[in-house]
Amino acid sequence: NSGELQQVRRMMNGGLKPADVAHLIESSPPKIRTLLWNMVDQDNEGEVLQYLSFDLQESFLREMNAEELIAAVEHLDIDDLADMLQHLPSTIISEVLRSMDQQDRERLEQVLSYPEDSAGGLMNTDTITVRADISIDTALRYLRWHSEIPAMTDSLFVVSRKDVFIGILPLTRLLVSDPNISIREVMITDTITIPATMPDTDVAKLFERHDLVSAPVVGDDNVLLGRITIDDVVDVIREESDHSLMSMAGLDDDADTFSPTLKTARRRAVWLGINLITAFIASAVIGMFEATIQKVVALAVLMPIVASMGGIAGSQTLTLMIRGQALGQVERSNMGWLLNRELLVGLLNGVLWAVVIACLAMLWFKDITIGIIIASAIMINLIAAALSGTMLPLLLKAWGIDPALAGSVILTTITDVVGFMSFLGLATIFYA
Amino acid sequence: NSGELQQVRRMMNGGLKPADVAHLIESSPPKIRTLLWNMVDQDNEGEVLQYLSFDLQESFLREMNAEELIAAVEHLDIDDLADMLQHLPSTIISEVLRSMDQQDRERLEQVLSYPEDSAGGLMNTDTITVRADISIDTALRYLRWHSEIPAMTDSLFVVSRKDVFIGILPLTRLLVSDPNISIREVMITDTITIPATMPDTDVAKLFERHDLVSAPVVGDDNVLLGRITIDDVVDVIREESDHSLMSMAGLDDDADTFSPTLKTARRRAVWLGINLITAFIASAVIGMFEATIQKVVALAVLMPIVASMGGIAGSQTLTLMIRGQALGQVERSNMGWLLNRELLVGLLNGVLWAVVIACLAMLWFKDITIGIIIASAIMINLIAAALSGTMLPLLLKAWGIDPALAGSVILTTITDVVGFMSFLGLATIFYA
Repeated sequence: NSGELQQVRRMMNGGLKPADVAHLIESSPPKIRTLLWNMVDQDNEGEVLQYLSFDLQESFLREMNAEELIAAVEHLDIDDLADMLQHLPSTIISEVLRSMDQQDRERLEQVLSYPEDSAGGLMNTDTITVRADISIDTALRYLRWHSEIPAMTDSLFVVSRKDVFIGILPLTRLLVSDPNISIREVMITDTITIPATMPDTDVAKLFERHDLVSAPVVGDDNVLLGRITIDDVVDVIREESDHSLMSMAGLDDDADTFSPTLKTARRRAVWLGINLITAFIASAVIGMFEATIQKVVALAVLMPIVASMGGIAGSQTLTLMIRGQALGQVERSNMGWLLNRELLVGLLNGVLWAVVIACLAMLWFKDITIGIIIASAIMINLIAAALSGTMLPLLLKAWGIDPALAGSVILTTITDVVGFMSFLGLATIFYA
Repeated sequence: NSGELQQVRRMMNGGLKPADVAHLIESSPPKIRTLLWNMVDQDNEGEVLQYLSFDLQESFLREMNAEELIAAVEHLDIDDLADMLQHLPSTIISEVLRSMDQQDRERLEQVLSYPEDSAGGLMNTDTITVRADISIDTALRYLRWHSEIPAMTDSLFVVSRKDVFIGILPLTRLLVSDPNISIREVMITDTITIPATMPDTDVAKLFERHDLVSAPVVGDDNVLLGRITIDDVVDVIREESDHSLMSMAGLDDDADTFSPTLKTARRRAVWLGINLITAFIASAVIGMFEATIQKVVALAVLMPIVASMGGIAGSQTLTLMIRGQALGQVERSNMGWLLNRELLVGLLNGVLWAVVIACLAMLWFKDITIGIIIASAIMINLIAAALSGTMLPLLLKAWGIDPALAGSVILTTITDVVGFMSFLGLATIFYA
């Protein structure tokens, strides 16, 4: 219905802000996404693009020819542009670079020379710099020459003649200072500077911990290269927090809620395959005790309880440790205390639930032996869960493996194997 | 060793910034926490406190008498102070209120009158307001009267004589404007205002989507009440992201990595107990088929595979849906598409893994029937997993239950029951 479409088009290019248009596109299934994207006027394409996820940016940018692409991105900030280009073929990157004036090209090339997940890849080059020996009044007049100050500018950066970073002058301080004194007298030199090579998650920790709005990025010899602003850091924080949640379920942390069926099926298949290996290992353990199960079928009925209680307890410990690592709270120095605490917690909950489960099992099967066996197996498995839940994240990290991704699979394998082995093994001894 | 202690004390009160001291305390086991906290000079206590988690704030504040407490908190921002007091007994709140001058008291009472997780509870009252009809030059002179402008001030708020919010004047715009024109000519009126009753997670979405540093909070009739700054929003984003991760493992989202043993054991016991009910339901289902298992023990060996594949597939769908809900992407309008996609993905992976598992089972037990049975059960369970993983979050949310907390328990119950029921049920028919 063309009247309605006209109305949507008007809303997409006027009523809604670019960030809202991007959200609307991201919250739609693939076909509607393309339909909505094609309604965005060319003038607004760049603005909308920078709020879209990398996956979507890439798919839309690949549809454009070089001219359209250059027209869409010409008004973007250098850091946003760099993020976008990083996912495109190098021929397109060169064409965009060629279209820019020399100063912008040099800036973009500098940002592109750092990894995407480093401070250098996150920085923008739109700093306003001043010298320490000019007066506040001169600084104010210098600012008034600008037709516009970049968004998120909360400080001027004070640099030497050779661009060496000296300190910051917050706008809030500039505005309350006596116009006749020099910047040197009011600037702040005891401030946080970010090396261009710092990983972006460390940058996020600094911003979070010190309530920063923007911070200077410096290279070798403390030369000012650019600045990082809180809006880009918020994205890093969101991604980092999503990472643990998504990885623990074997999902890509930038997984798109509305990925098409085949892509989704392919990605999920891998994780199901890995977990199938775990499941077969557990089955192999059960298979060792076929004769015992044949004799006492109640064992088959109760054995999932032992494995499942171990899995739950272990994943609680694992989740706490993974979050502790992400917050930078868990390190070698306090591991001893944590391991001790988790073992004690495992022991206490082991005793509590072993008694409860033993009583229920005895009542159900009118058999005291099975109660003793399941109680012992629960105790053993909860302690194994505490031990592996605490140690795994540390070991995996030391080996360079992401604990959020590999931790839960390995943990489940351990609690399944220990659970079935101890329960059926003890049963084999008791019922021999 | 007292020399070393002296050195630590000096570092705690000089070398480290308050946020770093707070991080050090949070990353330590309970006894060392108390030791470190006692080393903080009284003058620095308030600053350090505001960076600590609520749990720790509360435990340290409860140890103080009213005078110590008032001395510690007197220099804090109103919003940080309100957050801290909200967790303390009302007698202490009244005493702090009595110690303040009238203006601060009224401001604090206003912030305390809103729920902690609303915009009103998050706001600070340290706004700088101006009238629309004064000139830029007058505004600059007015600012210079201040000895200090509050941190994170990126805009002046333009209000009417009756404090009705009219617009904002970003400092970056103030600094580049002609001093002789009036504020009315350069202020921005098409801006985001936040109602005091808005939930804090919605505030976070607005800040994230529109790259805000601060935003005005308004009450009835658009009267300006205060402002929210990005540093507090970053905390909300961090908490919100942690919430899904922690809740899915049955942990409090503000759970302290270094909680003492007994507290930890008690909290975890509840979750283990709830999951035990799930495990017993699954056992009851297996119990219905004791006779069949007695006849074909291989069923006991293979049945965990069916349940586990369903659980893994279901939790992938569930995690994706919960994150989609948190990002505001998943709503009733696109549920049809999502359900369809997940069912197709379940079907595709069902076929793939059913064939693989059937072949492995046939080879292992030299029995074609068991291959057919397990293939069918896997198919049924993966589709049940897709269906419940997609629908559960929507249903739970509609019933006012937190999907991140209850979703995984209910999902596991469904995939266990469907898995065991279909596998053992089919076996009972085939082997009858």
